[in-house]
Amino acid sequence: MISESGINKSANYRQMELSEIGEFGFIDRFAHKFENLLASGNTGIGDDCALIPCDSEFDLVITTDMLVEDIHFLRDLISPFDLGCKSLAVNLSDIAAMGAVPSGSFLSLAIPDEITVEYLDKLMDGYYHLSKKHGIPLMGGDTTRSPDKLVLNISAIGKVAKGKAKMRSAAKSGDIIAVTGQLGNSAAGLKIIMNNLPQDENTPFLVDCHNKPTAHIDEGIWLGKQKGVNAMMDVSDGIASDLKHILKSSGKGAEINLDSLPLSEKLKQFCSDNNLDATELATSGGEDYCLLITIEGSKYKSIFEAYKAQFRTPLYPIGKINDETNTVRWYNKGVAVSNLKDGFNHFRNK
Amino acid sequence: MISESGINKSANYRQMELSEIGEFGFIDRFAHKFENLLASGNTGIGDDCALIPCDSEFDLVITTDMLVEDIHFLRDLISPFDLGCKSLAVNLSDIAAMGAVPSGSFLSLAIPDEITVEYLDKLMDGYYHLSKKHGIPLMGGDTTRSPDKLVLNISAIGKVAKGKAKMRSAAKSGDIIAVTGQLGNSAAGLKIIMNNLPQDENTPFLVDCHNKPTAHIDEGIWLGKQKGVNAMMDVSDGIASDLKHILKSSGKGAEINLDSLPLSEKLKQFCSDNNLDATELATSGGEDYCLLITIEGSKYKSIFEAYKAQFRTPLYPIGKINDETNTVRWYNKGVAVSNLKDGFNHFRNK
Repeated sequence: MISESGINKSANYRQMELSEIGEFGFIDRFAHKFENLLASGNTGIGDDCALIPCDSEFDLVITTDMLVEDIHFLRDLISPFDLGCKSLAVNLSDIAAMGAVPSGSFLSLAIPDEITVEYLDKLMDGYYHLSKKHGIPLMGGDTTRSPDKLVLNISAIGKVAKGKAKMRSAAKSGDIIAVTGQLGNSAAGLKIIMNNLPQDENTPFLVDCHNKPTAHIDEGIWLGKQKGVNAMMDVSDGIASDLKHILKSSGKGAEINLDSLPLSEKLKQFCSDNNLDATELATSGGEDYCLLITIEGSKYKSIFEAYKAQFRTPLYPIGKINDETNTVRWYNKGVAVSNLKDGFNHFRNK
Repeated sequence: MISESGINKSANYRQMELSEIGEFGFIDRFAHKFENLLASGNTGIGDDCALIPCDSEFDLVITTDMLVEDIHFLRDLISPFDLGCKSLAVNLSDIAAMGAVPSGSFLSLAIPDEITVEYLDKLMDGYYHLSKKHGIPLMGGDTTRSPDKLVLNISAIGKVAKGKAKMRSAAKSGDIIAVTGQLGNSAAGLKIIMNNLPQDENTPFLVDCHNKPTAHIDEGIWLGKQKGVNAMMDVSDGIASDLKHILKSSGKGAEINLDSLPLSEKLKQFCSDNNLDATELATSGGEDYCLLITIEGSKYKSIFEAYKAQFRTPLYPIGKINDETNTVRWYNKGVAVSNLKDGFNHFRNK
């Protein structure tokens, strides 16, 4: 079976490390085989959620995400309540990215011996807090011991009007690319936490953006109903990486105006104070959990206006889809920028 | 919020360890809160799968299970191919336990740095092997780094005829309790692996029962269609523990005849050779992944006969449901047996 996936079977073949091919290189090795098993009308690997036809009115969407201690969070530097909230929020963000309404979740926990029941109660309080806010029941899960690290896996389900889910594959040339929130705050928050940077008036906001992300659920549902919104996904690895998924799925290219990226004043001040590049954090930092969308060129003005009226906050246009397949061109005030960092790669950014 | 879950808030309160309350004691602390968020017709925490009404013909079932290195498997002692198979099989067993047809799965992987792409290819080959056998697509997942241990989380979905899922709560007094396979082989296999016991003619079979479990999918689908089958679940922690879930959900009691437990000759010989108690492995060892069912007293004979004709292997009757709520009485050749070990508790059996 190994030869099916194109691997050299020679005994002398050098053992390949995952860091060489990354998460998506690994997924490419097996995804095509499973596609043949998909029932008609179902969509599997490759979008924020899988899509399963349900009844004549709705499709079901399902997503799953794993959070590992010391990779996604440091247990001493996030409260159990916030961790409970965040682990659910990052999954709800994937549901939102389909334009779907979340309807339930499943939680698996691997728990090291030293974690107390009180810690777990607070974790579940946080999980319940966000569940209750959106009326989403925890419907099942699994609980087991862990040798050392706390691991959480959440699967979330949701419903979307039949055939109306917003897919990554729907971007068209001429679409305006936009995001629903500021970029880079979360990455700055992570830097503050990891490097134990000194506190000032900017830090609590940035740290909160990292520890307490908000899934753009209402925004996703609203955008999901707009005919002019073509592709949609959530910003989890940073737009430099995330945008590539839209381009690959849609067979398109993009140009991004770095001077249009929505950066908070607090991020700019923090980066200036700490000699960091705000643009880099905004494009490659990840974990912003806002939505990245492409909107039909002829409709974006009316959608922008309606969105602002609905949410009292703007959609931020950051670029345009074109026909240059799988290519992102970055500009700063009209001048081309080269060697921009890609998004976060768990297996490389050690 | 902590006071809501009944925890003493005193600052002097001793930190409670999870081992004191176990997995199910922990789940009891929060499950009731989420029940209030469940939509009408949905079933959440407490059965092998959650149940979600889909269309006029089918209900959807969903389950999730986590496998953690050094807790559920030792990476050196199971091949990646077998690990891929087993991780999916234990989830399909939960689908089978509802009488449902599996239709898809989701896989999250946390991968330590030293694991090679070749290892992962073999893991995915095993996962694909079982997926293809049952025509079940992998529909999504998550891949991330892990600081040290390999962690897999699988969520599986399935479909069952509307209102026909077999629930743990449906046992009735007078029901015959039966299992669809031998008990204790997997626990013996684990002992051989963990204690590196010497190889003989019995060991490969027992080790295979542990490393290559078979989910009783066809059996579950068939039993799910029999009107006389009341409650059903899969044997994952051992019947001493698993049966309690049926009794608790159904408000019933049970008597079990230990001399009726289906034990393989290889298990008996192995236990005799190694001074182990086969009955203890069969009741408390777990990971047999056969089905535990209760059958209407008046119908069990015809169901037993039809089952044998269908599968060329018997259903094994092991006891009877009664009205003694939450009580299991164990008998050996008619003589009451006390102090039987409970099933496997991850948080206690360290």
